[in-house]
Amino acid sequence: MSTVESLSPQALAEACARSMWDEDNASRHLGMELLAVAPGEASLSMTITEAMTNGHSTCHGGYIFTLADSAFAFACNTYNQRTVAQHCSVTYIAPAFRGDRLMAAAREVSRRGRGGIYDIAITNQKGEQIAEFRGHSRTVKGALLPE
Amino acid sequence: MSTVESLSPQALAEACARSMWDEDNASRHLGMELLAVAPGEASLSMTITEAMTNGHSTCHGGYIFTLADSAFAFACNTYNQRTVAQHCSVTYIAPAFRGDRLMAAAREVSRRGRGGIYDIAITNQKGEQIAEFRGHSRTVKGALLPE
Amino acid sequence: MSTVESLSPQALAEACARSMWDEDNASRHLGMELLAVAPGEASLSMTITEAMTNGHSTCHGGYIFTLADSAFAFACNTYNQRTVAQHCSVTYIAPAFRGDRLMAAAREVSRRGRGGIYDIAITNQKGEQIAEFRGHSRTVKGALLPE
Amino acid sequence: MSTVESLSPQALAEACARSMWDEDNASRHLGMELLAVAPGEASLSMTITEAMTNGHSTCHGGYIFTLADSAFAFACNTYNQRTVAQHCSVTYIAPAFRGDRLMAAAREVSRRGRGGIYDIAITNQKGEQIAEFRGHSRTVKGALLPE
Repeated sequence: MSTVESLSPQALAEACARSMWDEDNASRHLGMELLAVAPGEASLSMTITEAMTNGHSTCHGGYIFTLADSAFAFACNTYNQRTVAQHCSVTYIAPAFRGDRLMAAAREVSRRGRGGIYDIAITNQKGEQIAEFRGHSRTVKGALLPE
Repeated sequence: MSTVESLSPQALAEACARSMWDEDNASRHLGMELLAVAPGEASLSMTITEAMTNGHSTCHGGYIFTLADSAFAFACNTYNQRTVAQHCSVTYIAPAFRGDRLMAAAREVSRRGRGGIYDIAITNQKGEQIAEFRGHSRTVKGALLPE
Repeated sequence: MSTVESLSPQALAEACARSMWDEDNASRHLGMELLAVAPGEASLSMTITEAMTNGHSTCHGGYIFTLADSAFAFACNTYNQRTVAQHCSVTYIAPAFRGDRLMAAAREVSRRGRGGIYDIAITNQKGEQIAEFRGHSRTVKGALLPE
Repeated sequence: MSTVESLSPQALAEACARSMWDEDNASRHLGMELLAVAPGEASLSMTITEAMTNGHSTCHGGYIFTLADSAFAFACNTYNQRTVAQHCSVTYIAPAFRGDRLMAAAREVSRRGRGGIYDIAITNQKGEQIAEFRGHSRTVKGALLPE
């Protein structure tokens, strides 16, 4: 039987993501789909529904942030060390609309000591960039996977 | 019959908020309540539900952001000049849990030319601070209220 | 003879500021003046010189940031616990010019565990706001004052 | 004689950088060196002097910011459209010391309408990352080069 220590970095990242996904009611409830994960990286997608929009069918910025925040969480938790968000920022570049399929792709910019920086590009189904998100993470005590 | 021009700043802020609220499916759908509005200020509250949490009953950061983002939007749209979010940041201070009643109170830090800065403190029902949000706004063409 | 433990919060803040000031070549070299300090607060001023400007006599944003960053450092180090900057942001509101006397006033927004948030307003000699700065601090090991 | 319109994007970027450099007292006064420029990109270096440090020979964060801010300004002004900084953030990753030769490398993340996002990595002479900077720019009226 394989133990956590014997896993490759990629297999460890995938096992961490499965563990997080099972816990993450919020992301599942919003219809997010986990597309890919790798050490320091994660991609998720989500379709903008009626309930996420205002009267002009424009997506509330909070849902764009939430998708990116989930991608950030998956990306920074790929090392089996429990890691939390400390500070996040988002810049809105173009509006998203009801029915759009958004994708958030997170990549690691820096990881040193307990701190990390992750950049998440949010694009729509046409490949147009909707927003750019930067997350600052901090490791806390505990592992994601059972020993 | 009163016209937009004849309204006091407070009455104008309230009229803008009513107009925005009617359009804002997303905030209503999340069970947000608009507590107060004034020129450059707005307070909203929201209860953290099961669907907003992960397996440890901790609120997903995206919903804390979304509540603050709504308070920001209401606060910067109190002058009957359509105003959008450009860039927002959030710092997480303490976790929120299922059943918590969060309040986001937005105040204006700066407004000059087309740009504005708004700070939003997010607290729970015990008055403990959960997060601090800063929003940068930009006015666009158009009014909120019909002439 | 008074010991560190016997100092009032205000006296402790002032003792910390004196200790930091003696070490701070950079702030002194730029001609900064420490106007006031209190627990979680500090105000500094600086005059914009020729060397800080570009060809249009406009101040380089880096010097506006540097003044605010010094005020931030003094404000978050008023508790005799060595504290460093982690993440800072600045929004430019109006330009500053050669000969302007800028003031940076730092106040504490939040302090919990090892983390703190400080807001610094930068104004000119006419009281006009030039920039708004937010600093995130983290305590590290060690005290500022000898036991 | 070549006109602005006839320049290649690379030649235009270089001409803009020369024009900015001649105006930029502040960057020159700090001993910065412009290493390279391309459309949306710029690299500058600077040596940390005694005057930039505190009593522990650690570089004041303001000078790290200033170097990055200059790289940001050169990168976003490579299209012969006058462009200014609106909002910048910096995350400190490791300390810099007196005598270190820092390099700031700016690249364009997004440019749409009047707004742009630029990321600047600051490294030392050993290639270690010292800080990560993100700048948000906005175009204003006017060109850098004479018609």
